[in-house]
Amino acid sequence: MLQSLRHSMPILDWGRSYSRSQMSNDLVAAVIVTIMLIPQSLAYALLAGLPAEAGIYASIVPILLYTVFGTSRSLAVGPVAVVSLLTAAAISDVAQQGSMGYATAALSLAFLSGGMLLVMGLFRLGFLANFLSHPVIAGFITASGLLIAASQLRHIFGVEAGGDTLIELLETLLPQLTATNLVTLAIGLPAVGFLFWVRRGLKPALRRAGLGPRLSDVIAKAGPVAAVIVTTLLTWGLGLQERGVAIVGEVPRALPPFTLPDFSPALLSQLFVPALLISIIGFVESISVAQTLAARKGQRINPDQELIGLGAANLGAAFTGGYPVTGGFARSVVNDDAGAETPAAGAFTALGLAFAAAFLTPLVHFLPKATLAATIIVAVLGLVDFSILRRTWAYSRGDFWAVAVTIALTLGFGVETGVSAGVLISILLHLLKTSRPHVAEVGLVPGTHHFRNVDRHAVQTDPGVLSLRVDESLYFVNARFLEDCVMNRLTEGTPVRDVVLVFSAVNAVDYSALESLESLNEILRKRGIRLHLSEVKGPVMDRLKGTHFLDHLGGEVFLSQYDAWCRLAPEAAGQGATLVPGAAE
Amino acid sequence: MLQSLRHSMPILDWGRSYSRSQMSNDLVAAVIVTIMLIPQSLAYALLAGLPAEAGIYASIVPILLYTVFGTSRSLAVGPVAVVSLLTAAAISDVAQQGSMGYATAALSLAFLSGGMLLVMGLFRLGFLANFLSHPVIAGFITASGLLIAASQLRHIFGVEAGGDTLIELLETLLPQLTATNLVTLAIGLPAVGFLFWVRRGLKPALRRAGLGPRLSDVIAKAGPVAAVIVTTLLTWGLGLQERGVAIVGEVPRALPPFTLPDFSPALLSQLFVPALLISIIGFVESISVAQTLAARKGQRINPDQELIGLGAANLGAAFTGGYPVTGGFARSVVNDDAGAETPAAGAFTALGLAFAAAFLTPLVHFLPKATLAATIIVAVLGLVDFSILRRTWAYSRGDFWAVAVTIALTLGFGVETGVSAGVLISILLHLLKTSRPHVAEVGLVPGTHHFRNVDRHAVQTDPGVLSLRVDESLYFVNARFLEDCVMNRLTEGTPVRDVVLVFSAVNAVDYSALESLESLNEILRKRGIRLHLSEVKGPVMDRLKGTHFLDHLGGEVFLSQYDAWCRLAPEAAGQGATLVPGAAE
Repeated sequence: MLQSLRHSMPILDWGRSYSRSQMSNDLVAAVIVTIMLIPQSLAYALLAGLPAEAGIYASIVPILLYTVFGTSRSLAVGPVAVVSLLTAAAISDVAQQGSMGYATAALSLAFLSGGMLLVMGLFRLGFLANFLSHPVIAGFITASGLLIAASQLRHIFGVEAGGDTLIELLETLLPQLTATNLVTLAIGLPAVGFLFWVRRGLKPALRRAGLGPRLSDVIAKAGPVAAVIVTTLLTWGLGLQERGVAIVGEVPRALPPFTLPDFSPALLSQLFVPALLISIIGFVESISVAQTLAARKGQRINPDQELIGLGAANLGAAFTGGYPVTGGFARSVVNDDAGAETPAAGAFTALGLAFAAAFLTPLVHFLPKATLAATIIVAVLGLVDFSILRRTWAYSRGDFWAVAVTIALTLGFGVETGVSAGVLISILLHLLKTSRPHVAEVGLVPGTHHFRNVDRHAVQTDPGVLSLRVDESLYFVNARFLEDCVMNRLTEGTPVRDVVLVFSAVNAVDYSALESLESLNEILRKRGIRLHLSEVKGPVMDRLKGTHFLDHLGGEVFLSQYDAWCRLAPEAAGQGATLVPGAAE
Repeated sequence: MLQSLRHSMPILDWGRSYSRSQMSNDLVAAVIVTIMLIPQSLAYALLAGLPAEAGIYASIVPILLYTVFGTSRSLAVGPVAVVSLLTAAAISDVAQQGSMGYATAALSLAFLSGGMLLVMGLFRLGFLANFLSHPVIAGFITASGLLIAASQLRHIFGVEAGGDTLIELLETLLPQLTATNLVTLAIGLPAVGFLFWVRRGLKPALRRAGLGPRLSDVIAKAGPVAAVIVTTLLTWGLGLQERGVAIVGEVPRALPPFTLPDFSPALLSQLFVPALLISIIGFVESISVAQTLAARKGQRINPDQELIGLGAANLGAAFTGGYPVTGGFARSVVNDDAGAETPAAGAFTALGLAFAAAFLTPLVHFLPKATLAATIIVAVLGLVDFSILRRTWAYSRGDFWAVAVTIALTLGFGVETGVSAGVLISILLHLLKTSRPHVAEVGLVPGTHHFRNVDRHAVQTDPGVLSLRVDESLYFVNARFLEDCVMNRLTEGTPVRDVVLVFSAVNAVDYSALESLESLNEILRKRGIRLHLSEVKGPVMDRLKGTHFLDHLGGEVFLSQYDAWCRLAPEAAGQGATLVPGAAE
């Protein structure tokens, strides 16, 4: 009982041995993450089209719930850029931005997503995330980063613009540029420049100035806070909001409120597919981060338990004024770098943010939206990495096209189309690749018991025995292919009396393929040729034993290809053994 | 040039050596097939919701065109049951049955389908048909047979009813049964009974009466014509049409007219998906029949050329008052049994049908629709075969569920939903199966160089060497799985110093899997364990050589697992050789 409770609530595991030194490390990490999270949370809420406080609320209860149910010791849960963009795309289809319905729809989305993640966790469906290939994710993140950066340009220029695709965003933005608010631009552009410098140049500069590596790192991470403070003070002191600079404005001074999502079936069914996408993308992002960080310390992540942790976090967001959350890369790395040892660091961060929500929100009243936009732009451009195109092109054209299509469709038709197309094209390319399997004629590597492709190795063969290694599981997509392939090799010439299919790479034979094998056996029998199998794996053999195929088989099933060779080509086998005796010993 | 012409027009191949004896055999076959085709063509046109003559027109020019472009020597092209049903389902969505628009839409459908088949043939996309697995096709044909039979019951009872699903058909039929036309029923029921008897009992009865096997066969095949003649004479003699018996009525006495499909983009885009389904299902049906018949005679079928032949046939149907056609099972078998030797038999059949269209159509004026319905019911019930459920259940649950879902959805939601769902579920089940590959720990079979699963065979192992045979290609769907799998085996105990992944069954490694292998190598290196590969296939090795993976690999790549064993566990290898010396020689 306790064992199973501990399994489903990892906090009971690490919580029992929590030490004073762990606590002091966790506290330090929490302070650093809290400072970083305040502007970031406000900015992502802005990106999702929600009031600024939603970003802070989405960081408090979700973190606490993940602390109880999650398995990663470093993951920091909260609003992240890509999920915020997906949220905006999903909700703007069902409600007007800025309306009450919009914020409530965000709660419904978090509720649906939380429910889905929880169900996937309980049914151990974590492997579903694998349908997103690494290159597709990389392409999607890169394209999303570009889209997000483009969507924030309007805040830098102080104009109205919008859209779901790169073209829409630029089409609505460009005509507005003549109406640029120059005061806003005078805040936004330097903020972008400063933040880029903080990201790239500040830490080395501090090191050169003689500061320790740890301190340099902390100061560099706190850099965005400096931009927030300076631009807020400037706006307040010079009254810039009266000169057209958009500011965050009134943010309620309160702990996260209790909120109820809209449970109307019409809305939930409209949000179903977007919620599924958000769940899967959020899960994939989170688990990648968690696994990367865990691998550093030799810890293990349980994907199904992670689903439960993220599900609980999203349900928490749904009932406390938040919106969909997941484990973020930037904040998790900061948390880890800052020395967090247990999930308690997350709990302390939540307390810090709760304190900020309750007491510090008046301080951000004069914070320009341009500063927040600058924070987002610099953060997401860090995600943009087109090198995946070059790397996949060098390695495999199939992967390259999956990435290229994902990037193009995400930019051209929006995030939902892009990622769906990426998944579909990956699956389709895989099926196409397996539909025409590689079939190699093999011969004996002299002096060994090992058989390799006649086209690549100097091997022994026998004109009467055609040994074909089938390099693919046999299933409906390639069932007919094998028959054609064998027949084509036979019409080419030589008087073959035995065909041996080497099944070392055949991991499954489905019913369609079984019928094809039966038909091949029948055709060969009519031509006086025996069909044999060798190196059939246990699971495949178990299946075949339940059918009449083995009764009808013209030849035999050999344990190894070497056995088949010794039996079917005894002369050649003897010769080979004489030629290079014991070379393998 | 002549070579390539001959390749794309097989008629130039067999036509050059056409002999008198071949011609006489072809003529006999043509007469038999023509007699059988007349009622069948009328019946299928009725099933498609078209005027009776459309069925005959669809059998003339399409056959001629297939004769020129097709590769099968026995295939008879024309209207078939399943495609007729699909045609009715597609067109009734866009036009009112019996209207001019309905017949024109059928031409557009044939045009689209012909164009698609032609394009697929020119681009050599014949393998696309493989995405329909054998069990899915079997299930689809069985369910379609039931649907078609149910749809014809209204003609037997002489009432109005209709629908796309079994439930709709029965729901509209049952309340009408009180209005049954008893005279119609008195024709329809005996016709069904007689035709079943002709199918099952006539041939044995004729043989018992002393007739030769060939003659018995021909008479049995001509049985349906007897039913047509008797019921037509009865209806004409007794004036039954005045007592409510629906008859075929006026059929124009003419050769196939020149017709133009409706090319409006709106219509073509509405018919696009149905046309694709019809093309693929028609192609699969046709190629299965053609391959079965060709195998009997040791001939070969070229799938891509078949696509061109069927494409030409459908384009022909579109411009001569027909509707979508394909190679039919029943007529092709009859053609073959009757002794057809070359595609010229088809051409003679076309001439016979043209003669019938020009001169004999007045004879079918009084033919009751109930007789045609009886012909269809008996023909399609021959397609119904639920044994596929039992056979797949015994062999593989995945295949069983694909069939079961296809049958249930075809009956419950119509042919288009049913077959699409069948394809999707087959693909999904395949992906799920490959997402958790079988990974076997292997050891040396004593006295051989062969390695097998430690759980199934008595083999030698070494506690310091963990050899894992990965039974699946590595790609994004299972990329993460391997890492988890290896780590789980390592945490189980023993002090492993070397992990060898046996890649004999790994036919591909995509970019996602490459990243996982790199990460696995890194994790193992940190724990002081070397990662090795063995039996890596040529195509996979080529890919890996282009990356840095091999530079970072902690261990080596061995040609064979035996080499790996000799190097990594030299003591155990020596021992084994001592234990059972030379057992394999």
